[in-house]
Amino acid sequence: MTAQTDQRDAKAKRIIISVDAMGGDQGPAAIVAGCDVSARKNSDISFILHGPEPELAGLVAKKPALAGRVEIRHAGEAVTMDDKPSQVVRNGKDTSMWSAIEAVRDGSASVTVSCGNTGALMALSMIRLRKLPGVNRPAIAVLYPSSNPQGFNVLLDVGADVRADAEDLLRFALMGMSYARNGLDLPRPRVGLLNVGTEEHKGRTELKEAYELIRDQRETAGFEFVGFVEGGDIPGDICDVIVTDGFTGNVAIKTGEGTASFVGDSLREAFKFSPLSRLASLLAYPSLRRLKKKIDPRRVNGGVFLGLNGTVVKSHGSADATGVSAAIKLAAQLADIQFTDKLAARVAALPAEEKDE
Amino acid sequence: MTAQTDQRDAKAKRIIISVDAMGGDQGPAAIVAGCDVSARKNSDISFILHGPEPELAGLVAKKPALAGRVEIRHAGEAVTMDDKPSQVVRNGKDTSMWSAIEAVRDGSASVTVSCGNTGALMALSMIRLRKLPGVNRPAIAVLYPSSNPQGFNVLLDVGADVRADAEDLLRFALMGMSYARNGLDLPRPRVGLLNVGTEEHKGRTELKEAYELIRDQRETAGFEFVGFVEGGDIPGDICDVIVTDGFTGNVAIKTGEGTASFVGDSLREAFKFSPLSRLASLLAYPSLRRLKKKIDPRRVNGGVFLGLNGTVVKSHGSADATGVSAAIKLAAQLADIQFTDKLAARVAALPAEEKDE
Repeated sequence: MTAQTDQRDAKAKRIIISVDAMGGDQGPAAIVAGCDVSARKNSDISFILHGPEPELAGLVAKKPALAGRVEIRHAGEAVTMDDKPSQVVRNGKDTSMWSAIEAVRDGSASVTVSCGNTGALMALSMIRLRKLPGVNRPAIAVLYPSSNPQGFNVLLDVGADVRADAEDLLRFALMGMSYARNGLDLPRPRVGLLNVGTEEHKGRTELKEAYELIRDQRETAGFEFVGFVEGGDIPGDICDVIVTDGFTGNVAIKTGEGTASFVGDSLREAFKFSPLSRLASLLAYPSLRRLKKKIDPRRVNGGVFLGLNGTVVKSHGSADATGVSAAIKLAAQLADIQFTDKLAARVAALPAEEKDE
Repeated sequence: MTAQTDQRDAKAKRIIISVDAMGGDQGPAAIVAGCDVSARKNSDISFILHGPEPELAGLVAKKPALAGRVEIRHAGEAVTMDDKPSQVVRNGKDTSMWSAIEAVRDGSASVTVSCGNTGALMALSMIRLRKLPGVNRPAIAVLYPSSNPQGFNVLLDVGADVRADAEDLLRFALMGMSYARNGLDLPRPRVGLLNVGTEEHKGRTELKEAYELIRDQRETAGFEFVGFVEGGDIPGDICDVIVTDGFTGNVAIKTGEGTASFVGDSLREAFKFSPLSRLASLLAYPSLRRLKKKIDPRRVNGGVFLGLNGTVVKSHGSADATGVSAAIKLAAQLADIQFTDKLAARVAALPAEEKDE
């Protein structure tokens, strides 16, 4: 016990993040640059980088802030965005993604960060880290900009699996609630179940079942259940956690991101209209920058895989240094509070008869 | 034959819209005001209004532009947002919604417009107007602001039914394509099937089946099939028609609307930050107005029910005069081109063996 406690204290002082350096569309330079940004902001973090040793060593050498804080683990292959998850599970032993997950499995690091192929990352994480007891389907949770005081809502699942039954949705609710409590500091998160209307008689059968299961857990687990919510509540303020299946969540988040980009592009277009509007856009620049900072998806760039023995943060494939650094910040925060242990305790607290269903 | 042709010519000159005056959250005054806006813009339109006669007569009397262009059909009851569709079908004979649909059924009007309870409106429309031959599930299609030259994409289904099998999705593709061709003047619309990734192996089984069915119809029906698309493509420019089931479509459109509102609110907030930013917002006002006009959901305020013997336009429950007028404009356009006949021809053109499946 003493040894274990010492180890935990040591971990709390030095947070080690395992980073797949080959996962992003922008190549390892952007990922190393993201590590550099984080290293300069937070002196508690150090890194294990996975990828081709000579290339990574060259990139790291150019960043003084990373000196003495990076271990490189050589991996000669990389998972591409086109690789099928099943192929990666069978033949991916030499990839940087596999190596990055392995560092969490063997206890060298607390959290993995990858910008790579989501399906492959989830498949490898499930096989190598294994699911938490009581979890049938893990979920990917994202932080969605919202009008709530905390600035974000938790939305899950956004694509770990395209189906979810009522029992899965209950677990998503508990995991999302635990993430909101520990990641957003909300002692009593308000949970909503995504549907096409707020009336109890609406929607698919599994949603009506999930409604009752989640409602029945709210006292024990210490959250509020606001019932059915609609797509418009994802950026809204009537709940903090929105629960849905991976197909719907994936479409919702991509529609929201696409719409926000479309509004931004249209705004730029509107400002180009006349000399006066171009002058206005110069004066408005600081305001628009504040807006961009508030709703910039790169700042909340990290889907978290929930329901595994270990924390995995999935960053956008197109993430630049700012995006990678945001994912590392989230990873460090979750590592710091030993989030996996808290989540495991939450899901394991479900009555046994329900877990076996 | 001659009589029928005469009738059609007469219809082309005088477009009669049947309007449920009791459906909106803002009451009949907003709906009559919307009719007034449309009447002043388009001298070809006249109206049949459904609701309590004395109240409507009073409202119409205040609008000179409506003089001689409105017939009032008395209906003493109104469908509320809380009424279950099944109850309205059983007991709704005296409601303004029933009466509004009946005017299309009996041929007095070409199109119905209602801001009321969507579920009840669809249920009544199905029972009273009946489905087109070959259509198992009707769909609700909306115009979504997009970066395409036409300014909008067609998204369907957004909530007629929460399920859709592969055959239903094929019909949605054909109906959406016909709507894009006739409503957006696109001779060869590009159709995409909504999924969680663009790779052919991704997503649910019914989507893979629908992929093949839609692909096989593209030559005969004269559209392009771009394959699987993602949520971000709904406001994008890679296709003109996005096909999905009613559950997913409903969540997508509400998430998109909610996100656009959130961005707008955040923008207003950003402009309040300092005296300089308040000055900037004054100068930026014309640009922001242009943006608002482009993406204002009220301007495309009309979901169209596709797959019925008659055209039904569903307007937002919260629509004001501008919103109601936008819905009437769409209704008038669809009536003018005899859209229902064109759609019926399109769906009926499917091979018989597929229709019977």
